[in-house]
Amino acid sequence: MENNSFPMLEKIKSPKDVKKLSIDELPALCEEIRRKLILTVSENGGHLASNLGVVELTVAMHYVFDCPDDSIVWDVGHQCYTHKMLTGRYDKIGTIRKTGGLSGFPRRYESPCDAFGAGHSSTSISAAYGIAKAKQLKGDCSHTIAFIGDGSLTGGLAFEGLNNAGRFKKNFIVILNDNKMSISKNVGAVSKYLTGIRISPWYTNAKTGLERFLSKVPLIGYPVVKLLTKIKNKIRDAYYKNNLFEDFGFLYYGPVDGHDIKAVIKTLTTAKKVNKPVFIHALTVKGKGYQFAENDPKSFHGIGKFDIDTGEPLSHSKSYSSCFGEAMMSLAKDNSELCAITAAMTVGTGLSDFASTYKERFFDVGIAEEHAVTFGSGLAAMGMTPVFAVYSSFLQRAYDQLIHDAAVQNLHLVLGVDRAGVVGEDGETHQGLFDVSILNSIPGTTIYSPCYYEELRTCLETAVLSDKGLTAVRYPRGSEPEIPVDYADFSTDYSIYGNRNASRLIVTYGRLFGEAVKARDMLNEYGIKICILKLCKIKPISEEAVKFATGFKNVHFFEEGMRSGGVAEIFESELMKHKFSGTFRITAVEDMFVPHSKDTVALRALGLDAESMYETMKFVKG
Amino acid sequence: MENNSFPMLEKIKSPKDVKKLSIDELPALCEEIRRKLILTVSENGGHLASNLGVVELTVAMHYVFDCPDDSIVWDVGHQCYTHKMLTGRYDKIGTIRKTGGLSGFPRRYESPCDAFGAGHSSTSISAAYGIAKAKQLKGDCSHTIAFIGDGSLTGGLAFEGLNNAGRFKKNFIVILNDNKMSISKNVGAVSKYLTGIRISPWYTNAKTGLERFLSKVPLIGYPVVKLLTKIKNKIRDAYYKNNLFEDFGFLYYGPVDGHDIKAVIKTLTTAKKVNKPVFIHALTVKGKGYQFAENDPKSFHGIGKFDIDTGEPLSHSKSYSSCFGEAMMSLAKDNSELCAITAAMTVGTGLSDFASTYKERFFDVGIAEEHAVTFGSGLAAMGMTPVFAVYSSFLQRAYDQLIHDAAVQNLHLVLGVDRAGVVGEDGETHQGLFDVSILNSIPGTTIYSPCYYEELRTCLETAVLSDKGLTAVRYPRGSEPEIPVDYADFSTDYSIYGNRNASRLIVTYGRLFGEAVKARDMLNEYGIKICILKLCKIKPISEEAVKFATGFKNVHFFEEGMRSGGVAEIFESELMKHKFSGTFRITAVEDMFVPHSKDTVALRALGLDAESMYETMKFVKG
Repeated sequence: MENNSFPMLEKIKSPKDVKKLSIDELPALCEEIRRKLILTVSENGGHLASNLGVVELTVAMHYVFDCPDDSIVWDVGHQCYTHKMLTGRYDKIGTIRKTGGLSGFPRRYESPCDAFGAGHSSTSISAAYGIAKAKQLKGDCSHTIAFIGDGSLTGGLAFEGLNNAGRFKKNFIVILNDNKMSISKNVGAVSKYLTGIRISPWYTNAKTGLERFLSKVPLIGYPVVKLLTKIKNKIRDAYYKNNLFEDFGFLYYGPVDGHDIKAVIKTLTTAKKVNKPVFIHALTVKGKGYQFAENDPKSFHGIGKFDIDTGEPLSHSKSYSSCFGEAMMSLAKDNSELCAITAAMTVGTGLSDFASTYKERFFDVGIAEEHAVTFGSGLAAMGMTPVFAVYSSFLQRAYDQLIHDAAVQNLHLVLGVDRAGVVGEDGETHQGLFDVSILNSIPGTTIYSPCYYEELRTCLETAVLSDKGLTAVRYPRGSEPEIPVDYADFSTDYSIYGNRNASRLIVTYGRLFGEAVKARDMLNEYGIKICILKLCKIKPISEEAVKFATGFKNVHFFEEGMRSGGVAEIFESELMKHKFSGTFRITAVEDMFVPHSKDTVALRALGLDAESMYETMKFVKG
Repeated sequence: MENNSFPMLEKIKSPKDVKKLSIDELPALCEEIRRKLILTVSENGGHLASNLGVVELTVAMHYVFDCPDDSIVWDVGHQCYTHKMLTGRYDKIGTIRKTGGLSGFPRRYESPCDAFGAGHSSTSISAAYGIAKAKQLKGDCSHTIAFIGDGSLTGGLAFEGLNNAGRFKKNFIVILNDNKMSISKNVGAVSKYLTGIRISPWYTNAKTGLERFLSKVPLIGYPVVKLLTKIKNKIRDAYYKNNLFEDFGFLYYGPVDGHDIKAVIKTLTTAKKVNKPVFIHALTVKGKGYQFAENDPKSFHGIGKFDIDTGEPLSHSKSYSSCFGEAMMSLAKDNSELCAITAAMTVGTGLSDFASTYKERFFDVGIAEEHAVTFGSGLAAMGMTPVFAVYSSFLQRAYDQLIHDAAVQNLHLVLGVDRAGVVGEDGETHQGLFDVSILNSIPGTTIYSPCYYEELRTCLETAVLSDKGLTAVRYPRGSEPEIPVDYADFSTDYSIYGNRNASRLIVTYGRLFGEAVKARDMLNEYGIKICILKLCKIKPISEEAVKFATGFKNVHFFEEGMRSGGVAEIFESELMKHKFSGTFRITAVEDMFVPHSKDTVALRALGLDAESMYETMKFVKG
């Protein structure tokens, strides 16, 4: 079935080559791009549905505008594969998301055509406005385009951006890629509003339709003439103000069919000439052109390798996320106060069953992490027990709300922090390496970092039923490591494993315990005895655990997170308080961002995998 | 001139007593409240203008609703003084903002009528929605009211809240306190939009006016009748949809004169009966009833003690903020790339002169810290040098943007972090104790913490002209400590002061150096030699400085910030790397929130003032 020939794409070395094509040739180009997208993502994993939805829009942008002089700022950025293919990176598209290959997101270091990097949602309008303003100050008349999805529009930052950018005078365009669905189905008034615009013929042809209608109003004798003129003007006033985006100061064009490339090019060409900020509303279909993805865009949002012919993923495995979802289901049964909150990540965080079973107590708030925490704090203030399931790197967006709304008031908000630790192929913007530093700095917080599913369940249960105040249970992407046959102590506090009479102690938490166990086995083979102190509750740290560590000559803390503000430094400080006289060393993520690669490659590079631990511990003084 | 008699207020022991008054008595109550507000703030300092603006609205809310069953959620919360007087705290209002006295903000621990605490902007709708949703789940039919200013509406979180809450069915009311001005003059499309609503008579009397107009349309013979009916319906459709807040799913009432207490009561009574979320738009005058405040609401936003008769503040002194503002002016002269950004804090951050002199390069983005950072990163991406001046506690709102938009891309964004450290009377929500932990955790960041104005100027100059990437200069509220006569080393890196041959070393940074100098003098008198290592660049820490510290027997780090993620723990870890064999101790803010009090009282309580240092260092082994 596969057609592996891409003659048009192969000739495109830069956006200039797109312009050499006639408009009539563009649909064929789009067809090639779609085939290439499906092929690439089936082999590398990645964001398929969103990329398939923006093929025509992307081709049209490069047909009408001149990158890199004109700047395109992508929101979230997971829809930039076509853009990469058209901007000199077609030959490398097979390396996307692989170690050392192209990033799955726009990156300034990759190409001057990537005007601004992304990964998180709702930043494009603000960033593009900054770029446009700088151009204006420098007398540069090129265009700046913010490309944003309807899901991203539910994030407050997008509104802050709209609120500011609507004042700008020219050469500034926002393209709304409205695929009627963000990552999960989007929610709230904005979504409802867009639906309203989409279905109303009055909007669709607002201006021309209105003019035509008014021109038909018969003018029959004074004072009816006068009256009708008055009515006409009032209708006109009303209609011309009647759009949210026009309220924000934009000229609104749309909705335009985002898969009709001629229509899109016509709209962009018009927008280019206007001396006002323009808001273009394009309707697209997420997953367009690949039936499996069109039918189930959620599953094809971010996906691993899959079989092109069947649309089936090549691997199925239980994950920390699904384990969390099951634990939530089990807790919800007997606890009517338990609520679940997600910021547009129902599927990703494992909450699909909860969402359908406990509809009343389930809240998908849109891509709005700040609101999620403040709203959850409101629920908690009235005695509910909210659990906000959120990816570690997105929790960063709610740091102030964690402090100001939850912790200061000592409200019992529970966080299910998913994707905590290195996340692999998504790269630097998605690494879950900051949540421990964030949560450690917030007074009164309790943090658990389980390694095994059984621990995750117990920790969540304790967090929901016993703990007070802001409490987090954090767990990585992927699935649990193998449980050693001689490991039985699934404590929510800390466990000691290995040889208590050893002089060398490994301290760690979370899934790195799996690496430590492997390192121990390797060291044992080499004749070196090792003890492992596995923390599960990482804040507050058990004083007993610290005291236990003082008995060793060499203590090495391995931490899958930022060193600054992490657990290791606090542990060191506590050890010193307890007059520890041995050697203490830390391997953690030093002052750097971690690029995309396989988890295993990243852990290796950071000195955090079993081999690294083995090598580190082998050479310390016994 | 002063009238110190408050007979009506004295009788109000709870909101129930407000209801005992007749509507005609309420204006007299409001007059008493205004006098009491002016008197109290003139003596204690505080937020005057905002409180004067909401007297009638607050009285009306307590007249119509029943606190604490009905919940009022204040946004920012600096306008809650009247609410406190009417909810059983009138007798303590003279203690407001004083150590051990009432907080200047709503606090759940103070009264059940304070349904949700505040301090930062734009949280009320989200929190109130959480409360309302919890009530619904529990079958509680009481009302929940979010009270928000037009300034707070520029924050993205408010939009996230609106987007979600508009779906809610009943007993939920948002009151927009539109005083045409947030802390600085507010900005952007929302502001312009509200102005549009305010001035248009079509909005003012929209519904009644429209109905009256339509009723006058004469019906003369078919097909004109048919046509006119069609037109009528279209006008009606258009108008009833034509409001931003109605787009969000709310029933919109307004604008109502927020100082006409009868009108407000009538509106609230109607809103109470409606089975939809209601959005009430009230127009108020910031500073209402005190001429000096009406004329200059900015200066009377947050103010120290002042003379009631002249409106003049009782103390004038140069501050770190004004020094920062002067330094910005001086840098802007020769650097056309320099831009200044504020999130509605032009006056507070000392940028008034910059704003008027360099209009083109000055950006007040509204209360939108996230946008400020992402927008600034966009400016930096195009080669401008943006400086975002922001209070430490508000910088917490942009943590993710600092990582995702500035630092990951290594963009040169400079932060002027004002109010870094304890801030005194504003209390726990405003303490600037987290910024160092935040910034330390972000890879590649440079942080300066100067003590003296001269250092602040030099650090800012270095940050703007020489440093790369995300760079912060942080400085406290208030004014510099006295410069010792023998101190001359205004280094941006580190300085050594005192006796290099001492065995005891104090390490500190920022204004605590002033305390350390005093402690040294006291210890010298006691015959104890002390050396002080004063860090100015706190990230990265100079290795030389660490090496210097290894030469001492007793090292004590005093840090005005959270211990977790702070500089002291990193310093300790570095010392250990350098085989330090002496004793190292830390005094920093442990896992707690710091309540409101004078700076000096807070520093004392935290063990960070000169006396505490003296006592700490006196008893360590020499």
